Amino acid sequence: MDGMHTANEPPQTLAWLGAPAAGFLRLLDQTRLPGATIYRDCHDAAAVKEAIQTLQVRGAPAIGVAAAYGLVLGVRFALAGGLGLHDAARQVAADLAAARPTAVNLFHALRRMEQAAYALPATGSQSECLAALWSAARQQHDEDIALCAAIADHGAAWVPEAGGVLTHCNTGALATAGIGTALGCLFRAAQLGRRFTVYVDETRPLLQGARLTAWELQQRGLDPILVCDNMAGQLMRQGRIQLVIVGADRIAANGDTANKIGTYGLAVLAKHHGIPFCVAAPSTTFDLTLPDGTAIPIEERAAAEVTHVAGQALAPPGVKVYNPAFDVTPAELITAIITDAGVIQPVEREAIVRSLGAKGC
Amino acid sequence: MDGMHTANEPPQTLAWLGAPAAGFLRLLDQTRLPGATIYRDCHDAAAVKEAIQTLQVRGAPAIGVAAAYGLVLGVRFALAGGLGLHDAARQVAADLAAARPTAVNLFHALRRMEQAAYALPATGSQSECLAALWSAARQQHDEDIALCAAIADHGAAWVPEAGGVLTHCNTGALATAGIGTALGCLFRAAQLGRRFTVYVDETRPLLQGARLTAWELQQRGLDPILVCDNMAGQLMRQGRIQLVIVGADRIAANGDTANKIGTYGLAVLAKHHGIPFCVAAPSTTFDLTLPDGTAIPIEERAAAEVTHVAGQALAPPGVKVYNPAFDVTPAELITAIITDAGVIQPVEREAIVRSLGAKGC
Repeated sequence: MDGMHTANEPPQTLAWLGAPAAGFLRLLDQTRLPGATIYRDCHDAAAVKEAIQTLQVRGAPAIGVAAAYGLVLGVRFALAGGLGLHDAARQVAADLAAARPTAVNLFHALRRMEQAAYALPATGSQSECLAALWSAARQQHDEDIALCAAIADHGAAWVPEAGGVLTHCNTGALATAGIGTALGCLFRAAQLGRRFTVYVDETRPLLQGARLTAWELQQRGLDPILVCDNMAGQLMRQGRIQLVIVGADRIAANGDTANKIGTYGLAVLAKHHGIPFCVAAPSTTFDLTLPDGTAIPIEERAAAEVTHVAGQALAPPGVKVYNPAFDVTPAELITAIITDAGVIQPVEREAIVRSLGAKGC
Repeated sequence: MDGMHTANEPPQTLAWLGAPAAGFLRLLDQTRLPGATIYRDCHDAAAVKEAIQTLQVRGAPAIGVAAAYGLVLGVRFALAGGLGLHDAARQVAADLAAARPTAVNLFHALRRMEQAAYALPATGSQSECLAALWSAARQQHDEDIALCAAIADHGAAWVPEAGGVLTHCNTGALATAGIGTALGCLFRAAQLGRRFTVYVDETRPLLQGARLTAWELQQRGLDPILVCDNMAGQLMRQGRIQLVIVGADRIAANGDTANKIGTYGLAVLAKHHGIPFCVAAPSTTFDLTLPDGTAIPIEERAAAEVTHVAGQALAPPGVKVYNPAFDVTPAELITAIITDAGVIQPVEREAIVRSLGAKGC
């Protein structure tokens, strides 16, 4: 059953409640923030898939962790229905992988869960299998927390001592299992005493910047300035921005980066103004099977996300809409990619392979 | 009294109804479009000023014409109160000029109306004075219609035979007394048989693109594609855009152009992609008293325009907002300025002075 958040503790993006064989995944419904803090309890894989598709849980790393737990739920259901462990893992992983196409963390997480299942004897008891699968999911959960912390350690040095930082979409605790990616760097820099101003793009159409990032920054005592996406150029021209920092949904082997729509435009503007443009993402966001960004699938979403806000029509009936959820920023526009493995600069294939290889990716 | 539009004729942006001594200005309330077609009847200058400030009437040329009629209403009231004609004109013009700071057409229109008043004998009958002032306002109204037609004639040649055109904010019949500026060029090109696709930026925060431009294009049988402002870069990178065309609120002597916020970012993106970036505006939009764009005052508007849409809060309470209504695009990013006097290309001081001078501006 879905529940309201009433206590004063900061709401948690996702959490597993109960034992592997009987527990469930509790997700903070991000579509309702900041107005309402409502949890969505997922007792099966279909609920997790729907939560991913409707963006109740979003952010590439958080999607990966949610999907890992979703596989536990899906396999539990399939085993109870008499399916074998390996077939169950394969079918559930394939189904969850169809939730969204762009963020690669989803596929990485599901592949690791499938492999964990294949490593188990097909003849084990159901409760042993589920406990082992749950441990694999929990490991990804813990790993994401650690990756975020490492990114923040590497990225804080890029945040100016003073002046302004522009960010886009949401890359904080809501987008991950930890403190975030790009926002994590800002949180760590603030802890280190740097006194910068964060400008937050509202991030149309779903307003993750206005609804989620502004809220997260407020919660942590920073005092952000919200702008519309089309104001970024004006901010840069006025000299208010010393760094642009964003997250990523998939990074190709050459550094081309898919991220929330509008990221590419910010990168072009930053280049025009000589402002560093950084991507902060865990090493799980790289997809080394893709030589460059041209092969990254870009999700197109429903017209109503653009034509309606809060249920109100903002455009005439029947108008055509183009609504890509992501764009690809070419590597040459990216000053540095900040990962848990370190800082990749310049952003080139060799540097990427070296950095990730040293970490054993 | 305000009235509903019920008949099937296309709604008119502004119209004077009745005789100069007793008539009034009827404005289409653009804040309610496209959902409702509601007129606002202004019987005094204060109502016109409020309509300009609240964007019930907007678009630099339309503001100019509305203010000219507003001066007639204000002088009528002042004369009835015993004020002399010249003092009345001066006071009313000063008051209306304070409505909005950026669009220069407002000040040009009021200056011409003041001069028309000064040219009248202070001792004339009230009805004669009002008739003469009304004629001056009507002349500006007719002139704006003619300027739009001339801009469209010059601009249509810039519109590609096929492919895509991106536009921002609203520059059509709703923004002028005629068929528009940038949109007028597109309407004329469509009449000439060119088969291009118009991409419309929604234009946050007040969504003039989604609410007004998409609607105007539909009304005239074009079939626009609506996008969020942050999708322009993606469209250009995909090769979908062959021309960017926008309007202007004030153009300095060197060609630096103030226009709706987001215009500057589009110009930088167009430059990066080698796409022509054109400004279409009447010669009344030039302010030759300003050597460049640095001195153009940029209006900053209320935070609620960004934090709320259709009365719904989209951001956490208390968040700071920066909400500039305009930005300035430097001349070097503008391929051509299309005016009623012809096409200015390259955009340089000498070419501007030559073009406007030939027209006697």
